[in-house]
Amino acid sequence: MNLDGLDGFTIEVPSWAYGNSGTRFKVFTRPGGPRNPYEKLSDAAQVNRLTGLANRVSLHIPWDLVDDWGDLKAHADKLGVQIGAINSNVFQDDDYRLGSLCNPDPAIRRKAIDHHRQCLDVMRQTGSTDLKIWLPDGLNYAGQDSLRGRQDRLAESLREIYDASDDNHRILLEYKFFEPYFYSTDIPDWGTSLLHCLALGERATVVLDTGHHAPGTNIEFIVMQLIRQKKLGAFDFNSRYYADDDLIVGSADPFQLFRIMSEIVAADAHRPESGVNFMLDQCHNIEEKIPGQILSVLNVEQALAKALQVDQAALATAQREGDVLGAHQVLMDAYETDVRGALADRREARGLPRDPVKAFQASGYARTVAAERVGGTQASWGA
Amino acid sequence: MNLDGLDGFTIEVPSWAYGNSGTRFKVFTRPGGPRNPYEKLSDAAQVNRLTGLANRVSLHIPWDLVDDWGDLKAHADKLGVQIGAINSNVFQDDDYRLGSLCNPDPAIRRKAIDHHRQCLDVMRQTGSTDLKIWLPDGLNYAGQDSLRGRQDRLAESLREIYDASDDNHRILLEYKFFEPYFYSTDIPDWGTSLLHCLALGERATVVLDTGHHAPGTNIEFIVMQLIRQKKLGAFDFNSRYYADDDLIVGSADPFQLFRIMSEIVAADAHRPESGVNFMLDQCHNIEEKIPGQILSVLNVEQALAKALQVDQAALATAQREGDVLGAHQVLMDAYETDVRGALADRREARGLPRDPVKAFQASGYARTVAAERVGGTQASWGA
Amino acid sequence: MNLDGLDGFTIEVPSWAYGNSGTRFKVFTRPGGPRNPYEKLSDAAQVNRLTGLANRVSLHIPWDLVDDWGDLKAHADKLGVQIGAINSNVFQDDDYRLGSLCNPDPAIRRKAIDHHRQCLDVMRQTGSTDLKIWLPDGLNYAGQDSLRGRQDRLAESLREIYDASDDNHRILLEYKFFEPYFYSTDIPDWGTSLLHCLALGERATVVLDTGHHAPGTNIEFIVMQLIRQKKLGAFDFNSRYYADDDLIVGSADPFQLFRIMSEIVAADAHRPESGVNFMLDQCHNIEEKIPGQILSVLNVEQALAKALQVDQAALATAQREGDVLGAHQVLMDAYETDVRGALADRREARGLPRDPVKAFQASGYARTVAAERVGGTQASWGA
Amino acid sequence: MNLDGLDGFTIEVPSWAYGNSGTRFKVFTRPGGPRNPYEKLSDAAQVNRLTGLANRVSLHIPWDLVDDWGDLKAHADKLGVQIGAINSNVFQDDDYRLGSLCNPDPAIRRKAIDHHRQCLDVMRQTGSTDLKIWLPDGLNYAGQDSLRGRQDRLAESLREIYDASDDNHRILLEYKFFEPYFYSTDIPDWGTSLLHCLALGERATVVLDTGHHAPGTNIEFIVMQLIRQKKLGAFDFNSRYYADDDLIVGSADPFQLFRIMSEIVAADAHRPESGVNFMLDQCHNIEEKIPGQILSVLNVEQALAKALQVDQAALATAQREGDVLGAHQVLMDAYETDVRGALADRREARGLPRDPVKAFQASGYARTVAAERVGGTQASWGA
Repeated sequence: MNLDGLDGFTIEVPSWAYGNSGTRFKVFTRPGGPRNPYEKLSDAAQVNRLTGLANRVSLHIPWDLVDDWGDLKAHADKLGVQIGAINSNVFQDDDYRLGSLCNPDPAIRRKAIDHHRQCLDVMRQTGSTDLKIWLPDGLNYAGQDSLRGRQDRLAESLREIYDASDDNHRILLEYKFFEPYFYSTDIPDWGTSLLHCLALGERATVVLDTGHHAPGTNIEFIVMQLIRQKKLGAFDFNSRYYADDDLIVGSADPFQLFRIMSEIVAADAHRPESGVNFMLDQCHNIEEKIPGQILSVLNVEQALAKALQVDQAALATAQREGDVLGAHQVLMDAYETDVRGALADRREARGLPRDPVKAFQASGYARTVAAERVGGTQASWGA
Repeated sequence: MNLDGLDGFTIEVPSWAYGNSGTRFKVFTRPGGPRNPYEKLSDAAQVNRLTGLANRVSLHIPWDLVDDWGDLKAHADKLGVQIGAINSNVFQDDDYRLGSLCNPDPAIRRKAIDHHRQCLDVMRQTGSTDLKIWLPDGLNYAGQDSLRGRQDRLAESLREIYDASDDNHRILLEYKFFEPYFYSTDIPDWGTSLLHCLALGERATVVLDTGHHAPGTNIEFIVMQLIRQKKLGAFDFNSRYYADDDLIVGSADPFQLFRIMSEIVAADAHRPESGVNFMLDQCHNIEEKIPGQILSVLNVEQALAKALQVDQAALATAQREGDVLGAHQVLMDAYETDVRGALADRREARGLPRDPVKAFQASGYARTVAAERVGGTQASWGA
Repeated sequence: MNLDGLDGFTIEVPSWAYGNSGTRFKVFTRPGGPRNPYEKLSDAAQVNRLTGLANRVSLHIPWDLVDDWGDLKAHADKLGVQIGAINSNVFQDDDYRLGSLCNPDPAIRRKAIDHHRQCLDVMRQTGSTDLKIWLPDGLNYAGQDSLRGRQDRLAESLREIYDASDDNHRILLEYKFFEPYFYSTDIPDWGTSLLHCLALGERATVVLDTGHHAPGTNIEFIVMQLIRQKKLGAFDFNSRYYADDDLIVGSADPFQLFRIMSEIVAADAHRPESGVNFMLDQCHNIEEKIPGQILSVLNVEQALAKALQVDQAALATAQREGDVLGAHQVLMDAYETDVRGALADRREARGLPRDPVKAFQASGYARTVAAERVGGTQASWGA
Repeated sequence: MNLDGLDGFTIEVPSWAYGNSGTRFKVFTRPGGPRNPYEKLSDAAQVNRLTGLANRVSLHIPWDLVDDWGDLKAHADKLGVQIGAINSNVFQDDDYRLGSLCNPDPAIRRKAIDHHRQCLDVMRQTGSTDLKIWLPDGLNYAGQDSLRGRQDRLAESLREIYDASDDNHRILLEYKFFEPYFYSTDIPDWGTSLLHCLALGERATVVLDTGHHAPGTNIEFIVMQLIRQKKLGAFDFNSRYYADDDLIVGSADPFQLFRIMSEIVAADAHRPESGVNFMLDQCHNIEEKIPGQILSVLNVEQALAKALQVDQAALATAQREGDVLGAHQVLMDAYETDVRGALADRREARGLPRDPVKAFQASGYARTVAAERVGGTQASWGA
């Protein structure tokens, strides 16, 4: 089984995945939860240590602000990971009740823009080059604000942020169908995100969160279209059955994940030089967090490994000949291939455990941190 | 305009609507939020004072536990409201991470059952006759637990609760499509709720929350079917665009609310003797809470007033004759009728303000409580 | 009630609405169905005669091909209507089993392109300036064809059609979420349609069919966004509960139709000079067809009339002040206004019947054509 | 790999799958399509000959009416297949425009009931014991008819049919979310179907069509619940992305099919003595029909084979211990197992081709029937 295409493929993990998260009804807590960015990085480093796949960690500002960035970077270096994308947060402040970059009040827009300038500063200090913006803005009631006015304000706010960014910075602009507002969101779909990116310039690209679409949406089509426009900047991987469920990627519809990775392979976008940042963005509400992250990166790797097994020549032939079922079966043959053994072999050959989840359980790490991390406040969430 | 059908029609409001609520991302706070059940009842009483429609208040246990129930009832009496349904809570305790009445651990099922016994005791002390159970139990991952095993445990747990209830008690069993779990919930649909109610006995009935269905579900059909089975116990009214958005009832799809109320009128279920408890269950995340509740009860009243305008004889004739558009238009004629003036007249005639929302704003109540309610912790949420 | 904004507002009706249509299960027939384009125009003219709103009729090629276009135009003139948009058809030929403009076989793409050239010729002969393209292409199975390859072929095919069009021609490009293919469609969303239009040039614009979206999609947001991009070319109005149900516009969610028309009014796009073509595209499966069309144009007019009642100054003030419920209520006040009487008055003042549906029933037209149209084959459908 | 659980497991195929089918837009035709029930059985027998899985064929009345049932049975015997369920048809007659068993006109209800009596007669003559009723009744417009009145008529009609059936007959009652009507259907969900079955008696059971649910519905939950009620009579297998797409089962979401079959295995319902009839009900619009059916039965077999690999003891332990990810992974391990080789071995051992689709292509059957079946009218469709 040829798995060379996996070489160089990595997945970025989010610092907030190790903190507590939940639903509006309840955030469950567990012993050993990290209390600061240092401990989050330590947890994240476990994922990389055991899978060899996750050597970058996204930070979330202001949750992950530290006094001494050099010190945090040194901590990361020691752990074998790097600082990845910087995520802004314009949803956890009372001021943002009616929005941030789209708020009708210019003073609050100013505050939200300035927060992104702060994030750009963090990027300069950490060496991060990706500013990821998830815009939580939206409306709950028809008429509450002008849909058009909000787009115009958004364009203006983004322009200022983009102009404040450096030449080596990318702006990654996420879209989301609904939540935390329920009548409309101000970037509800890939089309709106793309229009803003096109207006901004070359360094602005779209983030595709696999959980942020209407029921029935063909996500791999969007992946294809954004690649075709050279505007796919990053993924936020996770799984959904109903809404933005933020479950472990690949747990709800592994065939969809495979189809997405097949579009990636078809465009050679799994290679590092493609510039696509493959990130996780999930909640672990009831399961253990580090095993949840390990399983997630393995699921993405597995889907990619299967996508690499597609017999591209046979597929192209069947497609050209209009052999509907034949072409479909070429794809399904790759999907039905059991790649678990080959992936375990590959890990072993690289000095990694065959079964990273079991290796984590055996490591005693969870017990150790539960014993050590006493007192203080456990870090909590975000999606 | 004949509005006699409104006589005796009332809507129950939830105590938790006046506390803070929000999404998993943020709970916004406001000055003057109530800090205890007494203050919640005071807020709720405003709704009734200004609309004459909302003379019962549902409580939520343990949030609304007080030391002296007689004293709370006296407070309610003074405010002109009564204690309505008692709502149990089996979702805000770490023990319930894997469920409550369905939990694989019998000790946790015991705890959840005992909590419902406590609620029955509250009912005995407050004179409430409705125990409302929203079961938050469910799974996030396929295989996580046995779907079948959980149904059997649920049946057993409910049996014990039902048997512990008094002859004048009703069990109102709610269903919900998803959330707070995302692979499955243990009472996902009206069919499952009904099966458990049928197994329990005559005093168990179904709660229909208008936000707890899959996209596209015809809710008035379910209303009709539950009435046909004599098993519609109560409504939890609210609005949704996407998921369980918990917006103000009637704000997202007023025509749907009208269709629901038309089925109610067709079965004479709006009359108090029908036993259907018309309740609100909403979040007010960004809007003012008391005006939000006032608007909600007015929206339900307006939909009912329109439904009462349906020319039933003309409708029956057109239906019998297979006049598709004619029958539809009879319904639409009622819907398009502007009942606002007649409702304002009716309120005026009963000594109520023509415009209850404006009357509330003019009353200075919000300012007063903001000044008075200083210190302490504002009550917070639940859906 | 000021209804001046209605002046000059018209709705285009489709020739195929008067022929037989149905579902995959059954096409019901009725006496008097039109058998040719002449009879379709006669039926369509009834709608305009009774409502004064529908003076243009879209044609569908090849269904509406005639030998002598001058003669058809003269027939239309005599009836008081004009030829509107020309609709191509690339779905009712065995050749199009695997697609038309995206087909893997270049010979079939050629045939499909040539069909559009034929449509452009019809436009030249009828004076129509709008070529409406609904692309039925898509896939039923993952892997069946290359999603990316199909986009590239589509771009190429559209380029050729656009280049073959005249300077006074517009290309109206429709998108559709699913059907008649179920794994993917080649223009599934407004984003894809817009990207192709942007690539083509100024004379290419997007068609928004109100039934062609995923569940939960905020359609008025898309209306706003397309107007903001100056790329909203036309509407295909109809109603849906579940899929592309093609019911009478305004029958399923009249509030949504009102919100859409409110965005139109907010952008002054209801005025003829906006260039937006307001068209119907519906099926009348079980109801009478001419009354169904009359009701449809009246529903659109009614929604526009209500949207014109929005107190824009009060709305802007409430929005600016962040008065969530106040702003929402300004909108709802317009929606709750009963405009039926004022619209009847306006019709009467213009020499039109107060109740166009009743006037049609009283006219005996249906009986007349049922008696006259004997023999021949009734025209059948398309959506 | 232990595949003993497959012994005795069979799938019933529908006679109409071999005729032409399509969407409302187009029914594509192909050379060699069967023209009568004899030729349909011949085609169906190919599926069984090559897979050993499909020895029963459902008939559809009146499409499959023949003069001499004994002769048709003899033809079936010779082909190695039997007559399976008898499907009624109350949707392809102009009389049924407003419904059949629910029609407001008693004469049409009478006709529809009598049609089912005819189907019962066919059962007596063919030895079939299953009468499958898919009720296409519904409404397109709110108000069009009384939802409640229709339920009462339905109950009455079904009662008469049930009473006319023999003691060895089963009534299989299907539900469907929407289509061919779009405002409501008269049996929209499993709850409604079950209520009617409970009212009818022991021999009435529910049919679960995998394509007949709202988006996001957890189908395996319903499977479990119906089994728990001893009321799961049959499956109609197929796949969907959006609506009732009727694609090849397992092609859209193979993991869902696996989860369904896992619930089946958990309840031992895959064994013939369970009485669950596993049927296909699909359209093959653009793909070859016999290969489409072969692939479908293989997909169901594959899903069952995987479900049989679940380590039930490990699963039960992990579930009991509340090991969320551990339990999920036990299930996923079975799902990720590649069973293709073992299934091919098993086929070979039983004298069947390792690759039934390839064997069919090699057999020349398609060419033969295309040459033979000249003249006449190809059988067409229904879903």
